[in-house]
Amino acid sequence: MNPLKVSSRSNPNSVAGALVAVIRDQGFAEMQAVGAGALNQAVKAVAIARGFVAPSGNDLICAPAFADIEINGEGRTALKLLVEKRTRQQSL
Amino acid sequence: MNPLKVSSRSNPNSVAGALVAVIRDQGFAEMQAVGAGALNQAVKAVAIARGFVAPSGNDLICAPAFADIEINGEGRTALKLLVEKRTRQQSL
Repeated sequence: MNPLKVSSRSNPNSVAGALVAVIRDQGFAEMQAVGAGALNQAVKAVAIARGFVAPSGNDLICAPAFADIEINGEGRTALKLLVEKRTRQQSL
Repeated sequence: MNPLKVSSRSNPNSVAGALVAVIRDQGFAEMQAVGAGALNQAVKAVAIARGFVAPSGNDLICAPAFADIEINGEGRTALKLLVEKRTRQQSL
């Protein structure tokens, strides 16, 4: 499945909703952000989504990674965030 | 313990080194970033730190959360990233 592409103009609440839907569907979600503004919205979305799943006793974690992507034929470095449910064994 | 305060001028490699040291010491680390530029460096640091711990068979995950802090008497919203080792039960 394609990653959720987050931009600096994305609404973190909307992205959080999409994130929860994708995770419910396939167990995890991948977000892609290019630039500090986009990443900011992506991370806010994860923080908000944690609040969405908390009432059902779940929690979300994310693992960031670099990704080389191409935009309009130019190479750029994106940050990917893999987001998934925290397993119950995982304690903070 | 105080959170690692990351700014937009922080070097992600240095922050990654500090992160790994703190996690080795106390099992987890907390980062605090105010603003998109600072958060960008913080998330890059986690991605880099994942590479630092990978050769020993470990992985790191983070859980973002909002935090109300005060800077020079003014209320600001920071993003906190709780970073810890992924447990082996947690699969991606």
